[in-house]
Amino acid sequence: MRAVVLGESGVRFRPDQPDPIPQPTEILVRPILAGICETDLQLVRGYMGFRGILGHEFVGIAQSGRHAGKRVVAEINCSCHACDTCLGGRANHCPHRTVLGIDRHDGAFADAMTVPERNLHLVPDVLVDEAAVLTEPLAAAFQIPDQIDIHPDMEIVVLGDGRLGLFCAMVLHSMRAKVHVLGKHTEKLQRFHVRGIHTQQLSSTEPESVPSNTADLVVDCTGSASGLPMAMRLVRPRGTVVLKTTVADNHSLNLASIVIDEISVIGSRCGPFDKALHALANDTIDVRDLITHRFTLSETQAAFTAARAPSSFKVVFEC
Amino acid sequence: MRAVVLGESGVRFRPDQPDPIPQPTEILVRPILAGICETDLQLVRGYMGFRGILGHEFVGIAQSGRHAGKRVVAEINCSCHACDTCLGGRANHCPHRTVLGIDRHDGAFADAMTVPERNLHLVPDVLVDEAAVLTEPLAAAFQIPDQIDIHPDMEIVVLGDGRLGLFCAMVLHSMRAKVHVLGKHTEKLQRFHVRGIHTQQLSSTEPESVPSNTADLVVDCTGSASGLPMAMRLVRPRGTVVLKTTVADNHSLNLASIVIDEISVIGSRCGPFDKALHALANDTIDVRDLITHRFTLSETQAAFTAARAPSSFKVVFEC
Repeated sequence: MRAVVLGESGVRFRPDQPDPIPQPTEILVRPILAGICETDLQLVRGYMGFRGILGHEFVGIAQSGRHAGKRVVAEINCSCHACDTCLGGRANHCPHRTVLGIDRHDGAFADAMTVPERNLHLVPDVLVDEAAVLTEPLAAAFQIPDQIDIHPDMEIVVLGDGRLGLFCAMVLHSMRAKVHVLGKHTEKLQRFHVRGIHTQQLSSTEPESVPSNTADLVVDCTGSASGLPMAMRLVRPRGTVVLKTTVADNHSLNLASIVIDEISVIGSRCGPFDKALHALANDTIDVRDLITHRFTLSETQAAFTAARAPSSFKVVFEC
Repeated sequence: MRAVVLGESGVRFRPDQPDPIPQPTEILVRPILAGICETDLQLVRGYMGFRGILGHEFVGIAQSGRHAGKRVVAEINCSCHACDTCLGGRANHCPHRTVLGIDRHDGAFADAMTVPERNLHLVPDVLVDEAAVLTEPLAAAFQIPDQIDIHPDMEIVVLGDGRLGLFCAMVLHSMRAKVHVLGKHTEKLQRFHVRGIHTQQLSSTEPESVPSNTADLVVDCTGSASGLPMAMRLVRPRGTVVLKTTVADNHSLNLASIVIDEISVIGSRCGPFDKALHALANDTIDVRDLITHRFTLSETQAAFTAARAPSSFKVVFEC
């Protein structure tokens, strides 16, 4: 089959990969659309040391099982469901897990892939493929209200105007919180603006223009080592900072203000697919025009180049 | 009056300080006993740039107001009770606050001090002075269950075998959590052991003897930059790390595991006096034998030397 493979020499299109063979608990899925995400770009740069077929954001057609012939999306953590962590209700943190397209499990940039059947979610008929393919990153944004009580009129700052920043801002805005997005790029901030989300363009010459110590919640989606110190400056005493993006580099950080101001810093990763699908089906989250580029699998290099470009939003493969 | 004053030349006994004059909302209090705490030692080293009379852990006698002639203890934050932070229920974080013996308000190592009347708590008759003087640090430990839901059988690691470590361990142990204390000092760990709290002595030669990623909650009371990285290693996915001690130095820290393991890192400072007094009055927290040294105010140097000695626990001034 055709596949986009990350190997020693980087990411390459391969027309002749062996077909995957499902384990007894797995289903063969044929991806329709699959999106490139920031994590994919990091994997190509060496993150996690992954080798194999990339891709973990996708909508496809189940080839067997209870959803056979239907469109599905899939949670990415393939857990053992038998260890203490899984039985304790934290299967997404199973120490034995593999992760679709990220960690020792081939992903969706291919003609076919294998997925544990219990990871699948049926896609409602009302959803077009172009919305369904965004379920996984939208679910990650819905993890925030699963971890923190969000209420209307809460003052929230989202740091970063990229893909994850937009999904987080849309989810929190849909809950009627007062969301302010701080970003550096006029073009990217426009995507928030057209959705009625308040934005402010950070100026390198006027760093003091943002009010300090007033936000109830700051969500760091910068993917940068500068995100947490800025979040610490913006959040109010006893407020919360959510870290959504990982930063590979070490931080040099003065943590005294976490204690003095009793800040909570909370890491946040994968989220609930059911809530994301529900919001997409009910149109409470507007994902129109977010797919800016479409490529075939054989156009691997062009697709990854587009995904790295600041002007793109979501780049998808038509599998 | 007599007082222990921190000035440009360090901490000194002064027999001739002017008597304090209470503001309209303040009460004159005559301290009976006042304890030296780690924060006092840090203030002497330059923390906060404080200049004035030290001391914020004390029991004394109110000289006027509704508690006149009675024994009182006092919350240390002197807040405005009028700003948004105060009206939002976070008076301990008032940006206009002064802090007894710590920040622009003279403290308790003296014949007399002024305290906002609303900060005072009456000491139950059943409590001896030697227990009442420990109310403030014990209240700081009771801040943890105010911030985090503690339940029986929760696996908790307390890092650090010092004063704050003991108060935190006693509070969490009294709530029937499974508390394990990791410390370096045989003598200090003995104080936990006699209270039925499980301890483990950290060996510099066997750093791997502590199980990783299993604790529901890790409380860092080390006061050391090595505390947080160790806490991150011990806590389980979706677990909580509470930072109780401030560290002046910058941390160099890889924060990726906060996101990947969805850890919550929560700063924790001053706590509820009512709960501390209740626990002391009901004898659910055993504070016997914790006062290891007593000094008069004029023995300032000897008292601070004793407070710095590893073998001491609580050093108090008889005011």
